[in-house]
Amino acid sequence: MSAHLTATAAIVLAAGQGTRMRSRVPKVLHPLAGRSMIDHVLDALADAGIARPVVVTGHGGDAVEAAVGARAATARQEAQLGTADAVRVGLGAVSSDVRTVLITMGDAPLQPSALFRAILREREIGGPAIVLVSAHLPDATGYGRIVRDADRGAASIVEEAHADELTRALNEVNVGTYAFDVAWLREALARVAPSPSGEEYLTDLVAMAVADGRAVRIVEADDAGDTIGINDRLALAMAEERMRRRIADEHMRNGVTIVDPTTTRIDAGVEIGQDARIEPWTILEGATVIAQDALIGPNAHVRDSRIGPRTRVWASVVEASTVAEDVEIGPFAHLRPGSDIGPRCRIGNFAEIKKTRLGAGTQQHHFSYLGDAEIGADVNIGAGSVTANFDGTTKHRTLIGDRASIGVDTMMVAPLRIGEGATTGAGSVVTRDVAPGKKVVGVPARPIELRRSSKPPAGAGSPAPVEAPVPSGADRNS
Amino acid sequence: MSAHLTATAAIVLAAGQGTRMRSRVPKVLHPLAGRSMIDHVLDALADAGIARPVVVTGHGGDAVEAAVGARAATARQEAQLGTADAVRVGLGAVSSDVRTVLITMGDAPLQPSALFRAILREREIGGPAIVLVSAHLPDATGYGRIVRDADRGAASIVEEAHADELTRALNEVNVGTYAFDVAWLREALARVAPSPSGEEYLTDLVAMAVADGRAVRIVEADDAGDTIGINDRLALAMAEERMRRRIADEHMRNGVTIVDPTTTRIDAGVEIGQDARIEPWTILEGATVIAQDALIGPNAHVRDSRIGPRTRVWASVVEASTVAEDVEIGPFAHLRPGSDIGPRCRIGNFAEIKKTRLGAGTQQHHFSYLGDAEIGADVNIGAGSVTANFDGTTKHRTLIGDRASIGVDTMMVAPLRIGEGATTGAGSVVTRDVAPGKKVVGVPARPIELRRSSKPPAGAGSPAPVEAPVPSGADRNS
Amino acid sequence: MSAHLTATAAIVLAAGQGTRMRSRVPKVLHPLAGRSMIDHVLDALADAGIARPVVVTGHGGDAVEAAVGARAATARQEAQLGTADAVRVGLGAVSSDVRTVLITMGDAPLQPSALFRAILREREIGGPAIVLVSAHLPDATGYGRIVRDADRGAASIVEEAHADELTRALNEVNVGTYAFDVAWLREALARVAPSPSGEEYLTDLVAMAVADGRAVRIVEADDAGDTIGINDRLALAMAEERMRRRIADEHMRNGVTIVDPTTTRIDAGVEIGQDARIEPWTILEGATVIAQDALIGPNAHVRDSRIGPRTRVWASVVEASTVAEDVEIGPFAHLRPGSDIGPRCRIGNFAEIKKTRLGAGTQQHHFSYLGDAEIGADVNIGAGSVTANFDGTTKHRTLIGDRASIGVDTMMVAPLRIGEGATTGAGSVVTRDVAPGKKVVGVPARPIELRRSSKPPAGAGSPAPVEAPVPSGADRNS
Repeated sequence: MSAHLTATAAIVLAAGQGTRMRSRVPKVLHPLAGRSMIDHVLDALADAGIARPVVVTGHGGDAVEAAVGARAATARQEAQLGTADAVRVGLGAVSSDVRTVLITMGDAPLQPSALFRAILREREIGGPAIVLVSAHLPDATGYGRIVRDADRGAASIVEEAHADELTRALNEVNVGTYAFDVAWLREALARVAPSPSGEEYLTDLVAMAVADGRAVRIVEADDAGDTIGINDRLALAMAEERMRRRIADEHMRNGVTIVDPTTTRIDAGVEIGQDARIEPWTILEGATVIAQDALIGPNAHVRDSRIGPRTRVWASVVEASTVAEDVEIGPFAHLRPGSDIGPRCRIGNFAEIKKTRLGAGTQQHHFSYLGDAEIGADVNIGAGSVTANFDGTTKHRTLIGDRASIGVDTMMVAPLRIGEGATTGAGSVVTRDVAPGKKVVGVPARPIELRRSSKPPAGAGSPAPVEAPVPSGADRNS
Repeated sequence: MSAHLTATAAIVLAAGQGTRMRSRVPKVLHPLAGRSMIDHVLDALADAGIARPVVVTGHGGDAVEAAVGARAATARQEAQLGTADAVRVGLGAVSSDVRTVLITMGDAPLQPSALFRAILREREIGGPAIVLVSAHLPDATGYGRIVRDADRGAASIVEEAHADELTRALNEVNVGTYAFDVAWLREALARVAPSPSGEEYLTDLVAMAVADGRAVRIVEADDAGDTIGINDRLALAMAEERMRRRIADEHMRNGVTIVDPTTTRIDAGVEIGQDARIEPWTILEGATVIAQDALIGPNAHVRDSRIGPRTRVWASVVEASTVAEDVEIGPFAHLRPGSDIGPRCRIGNFAEIKKTRLGAGTQQHHFSYLGDAEIGADVNIGAGSVTANFDGTTKHRTLIGDRASIGVDTMMVAPLRIGEGATTGAGSVVTRDVAPGKKVVGVPARPIELRRSSKPPAGAGSPAPVEAPVPSGADRNS
Repeated sequence: MSAHLTATAAIVLAAGQGTRMRSRVPKVLHPLAGRSMIDHVLDALADAGIARPVVVTGHGGDAVEAAVGARAATARQEAQLGTADAVRVGLGAVSSDVRTVLITMGDAPLQPSALFRAILREREIGGPAIVLVSAHLPDATGYGRIVRDADRGAASIVEEAHADELTRALNEVNVGTYAFDVAWLREALARVAPSPSGEEYLTDLVAMAVADGRAVRIVEADDAGDTIGINDRLALAMAEERMRRRIADEHMRNGVTIVDPTTTRIDAGVEIGQDARIEPWTILEGATVIAQDALIGPNAHVRDSRIGPRTRVWASVVEASTVAEDVEIGPFAHLRPGSDIGPRCRIGNFAEIKKTRLGAGTQQHHFSYLGDAEIGADVNIGAGSVTANFDGTTKHRTLIGDRASIGVDTMMVAPLRIGEGATTGAGSVVTRDVAPGKKVVGVPARPIELRRSSKPPAGAGSPAPVEAPVPSGADRNS
């Protein structure tokens, strides 16, 4: 296998400007379903067993080379002298022991790895000089037509401009993906004649191989739509839709219900468990894992997060967080990066959480902000509560013990520790630690005795704690 | 009519595992547009006049029987011995006075009641042994083909595997929905021979009826897409789209504008008045009624609620609530169950309401929470205000009189009564009732005289009421 | 050119009731992509050089005439006597020096101006009596078929009801858009005979022109779908989709990435810069301008606003506001009208802004409300902060200087001025101006010395300022 791998290389042509994209971004760097076009091509090549292809760059070469990074070797085509010239440039980076080179376009990101495997396999049978991919199009206008020979191989590729009526009527077109016999290719490239425009075309090689008495085999693409090159943003949108739909179909085949696949956007690589249900207008991005029986959406946006079994997330945004099982999040909640939500928690409307751990069964039903905090189990967070975690220089942490009850509109000035079972009064500004089981009230908050009478404290002359005219714990909400 | 009804029964075949669904949920219980597949089939049968059919269960039988409940009789097929066997099981629960039995599949939820009515009618004309439903498919691969006789009835149904080239070229297929002469059916089922796999197929009955000299009539489905059986989640998604579109089309025909039917999700049973306008990405669920001239969406999610004339709901969630006429809700508002909103109210961004009545013209423009409250007319709720309705044990109510003005960041600790025309100051924590026309300020809130000087009170030595350095009523917002 | 313009007029037929719309709104006033049908027709006519056409009104005439306003002359057809009669009514408002009159339907809003230009050009060549627009339909059922003569002109238009088998098989239909020789038209209209129903049809003129020995030329619509008349809300939804898609395609051709054109709604007239990226479920309405490299969506709703370069708006609503470059807005933020956001600002979740200017680099990360305020650069707004801008009668302004730090849960009772670099404590109610560099705390807020010890103030007997047990500035958050 490794012997075979050393003997096979690939060249990805990515030098073109893509003028019709009308972009300052090089064409192959435009994203599709969360990754650039060239990344999709490199992914499929890797999946077909070609680990480190050669990317031929040109327009926007610096940016493309930076984006490709260590995934591929690169070779710069300094002048736009056509595809044959680009391949010549790419071959300079292909080692001499390689027997077969796969050549494809960096702007054809939908091609599946199976297609690459198919032409490599075909190259091994009988040693043709060229294996090329064809597609059958309902309307082939503008494409190079494939003229077949008596053996169903290719006799030539005829560009639209040079095609007679009969050839123009053919609807089998050249896709631009090939496997070549490298030895023959190196020699033949020296013989390609420039076109009147000065460019040298790879497609001329087909007729040359035939003239040399070498076979040119054809592999037909299963689905012509997978072979399209992206030349403008309309094609980009079509490719986006096709790729998204491909991903959704795969999840549905694996036992995920996707209520409306056309309005659900799932990045490649997202994992979803059986019998999870994805409601409309939902985005699952990056390294996201959805457990079985989860209910995501409508209108959920989950990025780089893990969502537990039976958990529901709707009309909310979850970023780089972990959510355990049986949690309810939404509507209109926002988990910022670093949130870690325990089982059976309830995160309601207008709740914001950041770099905070919530213990099992903790409830944050309403508008409020928890940041840089460690919160125990079965805690209740009142509406309007805020962790004041920033002193202008440093972020400080807030620690809240199990079963604590944070009253409405409690300001928690960090660093702060609120003990197990402690209570804060409505509107309190808590600036000092609260002992377990104690209640604090007022601005700033001071301890009061629980279960005491409803009379106000007689503490004249001191900063006034709030009186407690209501039973302990009365100032929560849900 | 009732005589006719007693003479007609129906059997719904719902025993199959649905392996390709890859689900732990029985196939016919998967939901579609808010109801399970089997519910849709039972709905259409009921609409066709068949009140209590027999559902033949098998895989997941307990769950299916529990879900069907009182809507149908059930009979359990213990072993998967084919459709003919399933019908035999079902017939055991069909009373002896029934002359015609309709048989259909529990996984074909799009079939309209008109189709059921059509085959029952056809059964009454000339008394054929079988009436079966056919559909014309562009690609019939995999389906049993219907071979017609000279009279345009069916001569036989030929499974794909046994079909010759000519038969395979037929594109009229058997759907799996029939009306049978019960007497003939009972007798004929005894004669069905098992296939090599041991299963007995209902489709064999067609040739048997013909051999018996009995007619087999065909009713062609108006729309083949309505007859599809759901075998995997891709088909489920297609069926969902088709059913949603059918519902949307019906509303549009009735005079509702649906701006984008493909991204609007309306449950069966939702009522919408004339000239209402439904903007994109909107969900109308359950027992929802939208009045005429209402403007719902974009991005509205309304469940089990009544929305009044000319009211607008956008980018908001409304659950189990009632909203009167000329109200504006949104964006980013959340009405939780039990909200009752009077005419001309305005519920703005980040407002949350739960089990609360709002009188006419009351305004809640900003982030705030009203729960378990009774609020009068023309009240203004300041930003950040909260009803602290929960003392850890019991939910208490808050009552606010007409024309009261709740200042920003007012905490209302329930039980609490704020009188007509009363005012609360910014940041006040109100723990005692406020008399009509009075203003309270501070933590906890104490009454102050309105229109008094801006000098602070001289109340040294007592819990400090807030001074009132601003004119009365100054601490609201909008 | 102006001579040519005086010689050309247009009549738009807008008298029909549109019964199948099931609406109390006249058919041509139903909106499509943000504008009424008749507005779209008038736009296309204006674009074709016809500035002030004549709109013939009938059903709902008052409303239509009010909506048309100064854009067109109007003429009322009192009784529904057919299209020929409507044109006769319209001609009464066409001045006598006009040589060519374009006639089209007010319910065909997708017709591009190029189509109007094409028939006007055709009218100038050889002076035909009529130029009419045809469309080729896959299914022409219900439409008047065009019978061509030997010269490829029209010989007659045959209504479905009068068509023989052969004519019915024709799929080229009459669209209802014409350019007429006015002199001939005026004379010929006098000769039109009423149909049995009493209506007079414009289509009869074709055969009359031929009988008069005058040419009737045909212009084929490039895209039949652009010529459809809207007769019910299903057609309205289809037209909406087609028009939205046309707008999206145009932006994509200009170098804008629209990730999902089918769920992106861009009004005609919105401007978007190169390499801007529009994510799904986004609405761009009215006079909106999006700068290059902006990232809008998913789930953004922007109306009548300017968004700067590289600024991101997601899951938020922006109304009638201006946002500078490099700003981040969202998720769940709401800019109400009159917001003006400086460069590099950050507006986070549950933030609301109204009639407020934010200086460069100012941050409002959390739930809070800023209204009628002028806020400097590099200000930090704590969670829960509110401008109490309304005293029940008047809106007052809040001014906050550069680098001020507004602590969490600060109530700012306007009119109010908070100086440069000033700080407010957590939970403070600020009722008096704060001097530059000072800190205020408490309810109501009083100045304290910064960088003092953590001991509480000894101020017995006076309204209690909050103590400052934490370092200055400690009660912010982010």
